Parts: sequence; C-alpha cells; structure tokens
Amino acid sequence: MTKAVRLEEGDASKVPVPAGSNKAVSIMDLVSRLVGITGTLGAAIAMGTNEQTLPFFTRFVRFDAQYDDFRSFRLFVVVNAIVCAYFFLSIPLSIVHIMRSAARGTRILLVILDTIMLALLTAGASAAASIVYLAHNGNSSTNWLPVCQQYGDFCQGASGSLIGSFGGVVVFILIILLAAIALSRQAKRVV
Amino acid sequence: MTKAVRLEEGDASKVPVPAGSNKAVSIMDLVSRLVGITGTLGAAIAMGTNEQTLPFFTRFVRFDAQYDDFRSFRLFVVVNAIVCAYFFLSIPLSIVHIMRSAARGTRILLVILDTIMLALLTAGASAAASIVYLAHNGNSSTNWLPVCQQYGDFCQGASGSLIGSFGGVVVFILIILLAAIALSRQAKRVV
Repeated sequence: MTKAVRLEEGDASKVPVPAGSNKAVSIMDLVSRLVGITGTLGAAIAMGTNEQTLPFFTRFVRFDAQYDDFRSFRLFVVVNAIVCAYFFLSIPLSIVHIMRSAARGTRILLVILDTIMLALLTAGASAAASIVYLAHNGNSSTNWLPVCQQYGDFCQGASGSLIGSFGGVVVFILIILLAAIALSRQAKRVV
Repeated sequence: MTKAVRLEEGDASKVPVPAGSNKAVSIMDLVSRLVGITGTLGAAIAMGTNEQTLPFFTRFVRFDAQYDDFRSFRLFVVVNAIVCAYFFLSIPLSIVHIMRSAARGTRILLVILDTIMLALLTAGASAAASIVYLAHNGNSSTNWLPVCQQYGDFCQGASGSLIGSFGGVVVFILIILLAAIALSRQAKRVV
C-alpha cells in the first residue's frame, strides 16, 4: 500500500482513491494493446511481403503484382507500421495505469492519441479494403476487370492482411471504451 | 444559480461544480456538431445525386456513371447519412452540457458514441477516396484505366463530396478532444 501511495504522489489530482480500483480495467487495456501490436504488425508484414509473379508474359505486359503497385496498399503498410509503433510506445503508460489507478491526465492524453490513431488506422484499412473488393469483383461501368482470378495468391494475401488491421480498429474502440469506464469510475469514487 | 443547481439535481455525481465553468467548451462542441451536420449532409447529397451520361454510346456499352455503380460510393452515402442523423440526435445532449457543466455520465456516453461514429465515417470516406484516386489515376499493373477524362463531371462531384466527409472526421476528432478537456477540468475542480 505504501508503494502505491508513493507512486501516486506525482499525480496532479491527489484524490484519495484506493489503489487497485481500476486495476482490472487497466490490465484489460494492456492486454488489448498487446493484441493490437500483433494484429497491426502482422497486417503490415503480410501486406508488405505480398507479391505474385505469373509464370508467363507477353511482349507488352509483364504479369506481376505486388503491394507497391497500389497506393492504397502502400498507405496500408505505412499506417499499420505507425500504429504498431504507437501501440508499442503506449505500453509503458498502460503499465503505469495499472499501478496508479488514480491517474487521470495521462488517461485523457491516451484517449486523444488513441482517437487520432483509430482514425488513421481505419482510413488505411478501409482504403485497402475497397481496392481488395475491386480486385475481387471489378467494376463493369468503368471496365475495371477483376484480377483475382489471375492473381489469386496476391488477392488472398491482401484480404488476409485486412483482418489484422480491422482487429486493430476493434482494439482501439475497446480501449477508448475502457478508458471512459475508468474515468467515470474515478468520478463516482471521488464523490 | 438556483436554476443551475436544480438542473444539476439529476446528475449522478452531484459534485458542487460552479455552473458555466465548461460552458465555452460545450458551446464549441455544439458549434462543431452543427458544422458536422452541414459537412456530412452536403457530402451525402453531393454523392447521392452524382451522375453523368456521356452523349454517345456503342452497341455494347452505354456510357454513364452514377454513384450506384460503385459499392464504395454507395457505402459513402449511407455512412454520411447515418453520421448526419447521429449529429442531429446528439444536439439536445450537447445543449444539456452547455447548461449542466458538471454532467459527466452523458459526456462519457457521447465520447464512446463519437468514437464509433468517427470510425464509421473515416471508413466510408477513405473507401470512397481510394476509388476516386483510382478513377483519377488508374492502375497500370491491373489494367484499370483512369476514367476521369471521360467522366470529368462525375469525378469532380465525387472528389468534392469527399471534402464534406473528411470535414466531419476533423469535427469528430475536435469534439472528442473537447470532451477530454471538459472531463479533465472537472477532475481538477473537484480537488
């Protein structure tokens, strides 16, 4: 208990909140972030290494596909790498929240950063998803033919890497929800 | 003052916070939501009415483009309509926050809903943006030709409607930031 009190000294609010009250929520937050790291890292690697060359070519066209051919896929890789790095950097703060249940300023800081990263990750994942959809189904009015019959492996790789990224989106919504719960609990306890 | 106290009676926290302390933040929140309504409504209408028929046709192909031809654009219209309705429904709660600075539970509820809507709107806007990019530039490796030279008006309409939608995304990030500021101010005042 003395350790917990000492750790809380640096907190601006200095409200006499019993330590450990938000511990379960903070531990779930940490676990969610670890899941997020796995998901976004996996998505970035899966998309970044996604490449397929067909075993034939003509005089005019070389048949190969890689993520670099699509701006949206390039964006996807960059965004997932950024979000993965952010998750990694937010781990220490998340651990601090487990030890210091009363921490309020850092929780609000994390909510804001989480929100911005949520927007970034959703943008990257959706842009890539719309291209994957187009690759599968094509579009008749613009004469864009589906390419997944030729580039089956490439399409599968791209579709699979979306899963990790949208998993990251779910993680963000969950941890913002957890932060809101933690903040509202503090409010009740103060009263 | 009696009125303010009476209004705060329904609040769970019942902390003696002076009324009007978060008023400026709450008014900014309300104004941001009104901007958000304009942006998303404009985006939904602009995209929903976007259509262009070319003055010639062949035996095989009829040259017309409308938003309905692209799943991503259809999603865009639906998402913007949903978010616009949400903004509209959240106005009463935002007005309540102007009168009741100490409101905490409803603020946290709005933060959570805002976060979900932010993810939804970003997804719709980005999916549409990636298709607009493709329409402008095409993709050589999949043989998807740019169509904006033929469908100039259609492309301009689609690009323009993205502005309103991304404006809505910025509004959401701003109001989540404002809610975090309001919550952190309450925390300081309680101490």
